[in-house]
Amino acid sequence: MPELADVAKELIAQERATATFAVPTCIDVVLGSKAWQARRAELRALVMEHPVLSDRDMMYRNHKERYEFALRKAHAYTQFLQQHNITDADERTFVYEQLGEPLPIDVHRSMFLPTLETQMDEEQRAYWVPLAREAKILGGYAQTELGHGSNVQGIETTAVYDSVTEEFVLNSPTLTSRKWWPGGLGKTANYIVLHARLTLDGKDRGVQAFLVPLRDPTTHQPLPGLEIGDIGPKIGFQSVDNGYCVLHNVRIPRRHMLMRFAKVLPNGEFVKPPSDKLVYFTMVKVRVSLVHYAAKYLSFVTTIATRFSAVRLQGYAPGSKSKVEVPVLSYENQQHTLFPLIAMSYGGIFASRRIQAIYDTLLPQLSGPLDAHQLDVLNQLHATSSGLKALLTTEVGDGMERARRACGGHGFSASSNIPHLMQEFIGACTFEGTFDVLVQQHTASLLKRLHKPVNVRTSDQSMDLFSFMNIDPHQSCAVATPEQLLAPDVLLRAFQVRALKALHAAVRHEGSLHYQSRASMGHAESVFLQCFFDGVIAITDGPLRAVMFQLWQLYALWRITLHLGEFRVDDYLSATQATWVQEALLALLPQIRPNAIALVDGFGHSDFELNSAIGRYDGDVYRALIARAANEPLNRTDVVDGYHKYLQPILASKL
Amino acid sequence: MPELADVAKELIAQERATATFAVPTCIDVVLGSKAWQARRAELRALVMEHPVLSDRDMMYRNHKERYEFALRKAHAYTQFLQQHNITDADERTFVYEQLGEPLPIDVHRSMFLPTLETQMDEEQRAYWVPLAREAKILGGYAQTELGHGSNVQGIETTAVYDSVTEEFVLNSPTLTSRKWWPGGLGKTANYIVLHARLTLDGKDRGVQAFLVPLRDPTTHQPLPGLEIGDIGPKIGFQSVDNGYCVLHNVRIPRRHMLMRFAKVLPNGEFVKPPSDKLVYFTMVKVRVSLVHYAAKYLSFVTTIATRFSAVRLQGYAPGSKSKVEVPVLSYENQQHTLFPLIAMSYGGIFASRRIQAIYDTLLPQLSGPLDAHQLDVLNQLHATSSGLKALLTTEVGDGMERARRACGGHGFSASSNIPHLMQEFIGACTFEGTFDVLVQQHTASLLKRLHKPVNVRTSDQSMDLFSFMNIDPHQSCAVATPEQLLAPDVLLRAFQVRALKALHAAVRHEGSLHYQSRASMGHAESVFLQCFFDGVIAITDGPLRAVMFQLWQLYALWRITLHLGEFRVDDYLSATQATWVQEALLALLPQIRPNAIALVDGFGHSDFELNSAIGRYDGDVYRALIARAANEPLNRTDVVDGYHKYLQPILASKL
Repeated sequence: MPELADVAKELIAQERATATFAVPTCIDVVLGSKAWQARRAELRALVMEHPVLSDRDMMYRNHKERYEFALRKAHAYTQFLQQHNITDADERTFVYEQLGEPLPIDVHRSMFLPTLETQMDEEQRAYWVPLAREAKILGGYAQTELGHGSNVQGIETTAVYDSVTEEFVLNSPTLTSRKWWPGGLGKTANYIVLHARLTLDGKDRGVQAFLVPLRDPTTHQPLPGLEIGDIGPKIGFQSVDNGYCVLHNVRIPRRHMLMRFAKVLPNGEFVKPPSDKLVYFTMVKVRVSLVHYAAKYLSFVTTIATRFSAVRLQGYAPGSKSKVEVPVLSYENQQHTLFPLIAMSYGGIFASRRIQAIYDTLLPQLSGPLDAHQLDVLNQLHATSSGLKALLTTEVGDGMERARRACGGHGFSASSNIPHLMQEFIGACTFEGTFDVLVQQHTASLLKRLHKPVNVRTSDQSMDLFSFMNIDPHQSCAVATPEQLLAPDVLLRAFQVRALKALHAAVRHEGSLHYQSRASMGHAESVFLQCFFDGVIAITDGPLRAVMFQLWQLYALWRITLHLGEFRVDDYLSATQATWVQEALLALLPQIRPNAIALVDGFGHSDFELNSAIGRYDGDVYRALIARAANEPLNRTDVVDGYHKYLQPILASKL
Repeated sequence: MPELADVAKELIAQERATATFAVPTCIDVVLGSKAWQARRAELRALVMEHPVLSDRDMMYRNHKERYEFALRKAHAYTQFLQQHNITDADERTFVYEQLGEPLPIDVHRSMFLPTLETQMDEEQRAYWVPLAREAKILGGYAQTELGHGSNVQGIETTAVYDSVTEEFVLNSPTLTSRKWWPGGLGKTANYIVLHARLTLDGKDRGVQAFLVPLRDPTTHQPLPGLEIGDIGPKIGFQSVDNGYCVLHNVRIPRRHMLMRFAKVLPNGEFVKPPSDKLVYFTMVKVRVSLVHYAAKYLSFVTTIATRFSAVRLQGYAPGSKSKVEVPVLSYENQQHTLFPLIAMSYGGIFASRRIQAIYDTLLPQLSGPLDAHQLDVLNQLHATSSGLKALLTTEVGDGMERARRACGGHGFSASSNIPHLMQEFIGACTFEGTFDVLVQQHTASLLKRLHKPVNVRTSDQSMDLFSFMNIDPHQSCAVATPEQLLAPDVLLRAFQVRALKALHAAVRHEGSLHYQSRASMGHAESVFLQCFFDGVIAITDGPLRAVMFQLWQLYALWRITLHLGEFRVDDYLSATQATWVQEALLALLPQIRPNAIALVDGFGHSDFELNSAIGRYDGDVYRALIARAANEPLNRTDVVDGYHKYLQPILASKL
């Protein structure tokens, strides 16, 4: 009998032979220069040989054990950076992302430091940023409270200015006002950026950000007036001490308010920020980066699921009498599940680049006063990044789960690493703004702009994300053959019309969150599709571009079938055209099939990063599953410890 | 400032005051007689005061710790049954379901014992069933292998009959043939029902079931020729030792084959079973029961999410200038997320009763030869239970996740108990048949029956699940007003037509798994909707029936909007009718709103069962969250153990 375990390795090699493009070319597009790729490989090799940093035994640990080990990892990480003199920000981020799990210093890196950088004035930055950068202080970001998350305006923590001592007095006036959720707050951070409602001379000055010392720099004991702790286990971030904090008359100096935008003068006078949105600009940054992470996590899981599908033999070809089993990747449903997710991963890479570029362009402009045009770009970015975050975290969360199910039982096993990847990701569906809050913000901006158009500078067309408002919504799709449907302008236009119709429906159904959601998602989908398309046509390599274009078409058709009702509003698509969409989608699947493995190889993920027994590059999945099981602590003995005490008495008694 | 924590309690009380039906009446429909409800309360109270059985600290434990504690719980459970002389099967099941997690004896209860009961002949049953029932032996059910899950025909384990010794010789001939996944196999079971491909005189006799001793009855050591272990951590079932097993020339007596249907005589002669499907009848039983469990788990999570939504104040009413926050349940999107899931939970309860009744009717008939009509019922049950399992596990898995997200960050926290409920449930999406395999089986039966109709006995109309084949598929929806759309016959007919059109599309697109899936789901949805409707109209209490009927309408409209493209095939629904569907759905939400809390109260779940800080009956969720966090083991000290070793050096050095 042939060993399926060996057949598996041959199968995946065969899959690679059918690719019509060069994988390294694709990796260049995704990862960048060869020099950077070489540096990554070098750094990764160092991490892989490090006994602590390479640890991947998190699946065997509970929350407390994971936190404790992650602290050890954080220590090893800082030593590692020093030892190898790694000072470049991209290199540090790369190393950090090789660690397999977030560390207790995660929020320090991703939110605390950036907030100091973007929200402090020059003098404050000069003092605090080096301390934070050199980890002389470790910080968190405390906005969410037990009773309030997405509605920042509802937070209850108070900051009252005492102009006599030139201090702010901070309080948690209610049970629900305690800060709740901030990563690193529970046990690790000794400083925090705290959001509180500011009162000056009895006057409400809105929610502002303050830097608050939490723990004694020597003993690490909580400072007087503070109750601090960990909020307990969660689906993901088990290695992080998400925490709570209660403040009782905690006093901080005036200059501990972050004063880049809003300011409080010594006499208690308030200086307004140029825009109310600026205090939340860290959240825009995080939403922009979440588009990137969403695409990345989806690409991890699709790589695992697609490779496993290529080696997993199960059942027989439909209609065939053959008794030779086929890889599940040959099933139409498996392709229909996975290929659109591969497409969405690439689309997300391109969309994240576009939105990041807009952010990067805008950031330096925030120091000075903004003109109407710049404010429009800021509004567009704030709105669209909200919509894209809502769209992508939802779709990626759902997509990961579909990919997991497509792996059958092995996707349920920690050995596949899909559970871990999902658990670490899906918090993103709710943190930094729940779906409902984001789509409301997004659509509110769209509606405002619809009612009050702004002239966009011709030099900045690529930054204009609201251009769909200029098309004619009263049209129907004119294509007369199935082939015409696949043309880029036809597909792009269908999404623009759908978005604009949805926006008009939101106008007609004023106050309906349902129609607002559709308007937000319609626009986000249209922007995503456009960014994806622009990314594809910019690829210089012909064979790669051709495959990516097929993937783009597949993606567009897939999204139409998922929301066919919306594309058939007013019969924009006819019943016949709708059947063409469905058939064109299914017809693309076998065309993409020969490139499926090459496309996931093209993400450039290493086996070490994937950490998946079933997603291995070489297809040797079954031996890997057996090897993983051998590590299970329960297998250290043949007879479990509890046998004599618990199991033997059951067998000896009557159930 | 008013304490939101207190406002929360008032809010949920106010919600209860707006109900238009009596909750106890609803609980009677769901749970049955008052006597049974009283007995449940009595048993639950006993469990709640038991120090081990009431334990809910699983969130703090890793897989090994959870298994070890679950063994202790299993021991306590058997003692508890004896101590309180609980012998009734329903009572035992009820107590077991109060334990908060599956135990290592889960498969012994749910699959091993039922398989012996249904697959053994009378003599075998007389000997083995009492042993299993009294837990003198603890068993598992080993069908899945490392290399084969859903395609049972592909399994590689061999059983060769040796007529000299009258024994079967069992082997795992390849690396991928090792049994993999069976619950309880790793460390607990000392017997197993093993599926292996039987060879008699060199002739393949298909996959058969055998009872195999695994461990020494005294020492619990694996018997010679067996390698046994635990497969490691998973998303759920962390308290269960899902295991693997390798067989090397393991010999068992001839009478260890389960011989109710197929038999092997001492001379090696093979007696065929009356139907090939009978050997898998345990799987039909499990699929039928999964419909029940899917509805139950969905009702747990919707109860938690709906109650939390009633007390969670966040943001302001759309269009309102008020600064008083509203409960998130007042948002249209929240209603649109949760109310259809409440509806699906009730629908699942009714659907599960219908399908269970068919199973119960059929089971005793299996002893004798089956006539054409009975075979047709068996086929319908096998097919429809497959489709319903595929539909419901998918929808409930997805629905739980949507409900979780609707709770914002708190749904991500273990304190909500939603993570635990999801993790324990979603294995059901892939075990006992993946979606793709089930829909293929389902549609194959539908197609066979379409091509070869069977006359259904008029006495058995309620068992005829395939009656949709008799309608005319060439019709379009004739309603002329939005109101007409809400009529039961209009909605039921729409689903039947959609199902039949999908089945015909599967005929046209022969071999397309995509169209087969649609045909399967179309039929499963239609059956579900009919069972739900039949359940609603059978309710005798007028006010309750009226609310349930609204819920049923909501459910039907919701499913249409989700698959609007399919209902618009050939313009069965026009563009105008499609907008009516959407608007009618949204219009029902505020009508159901006053009954939302009463409807989830109507499931009759106790706080102990829900085990959720945010799903409490009394709405006192914030104090409960704080109390939970206090239990986190990391909070036993203010400064973590690793501070001096790992954290202090980070702060003293340069990151």
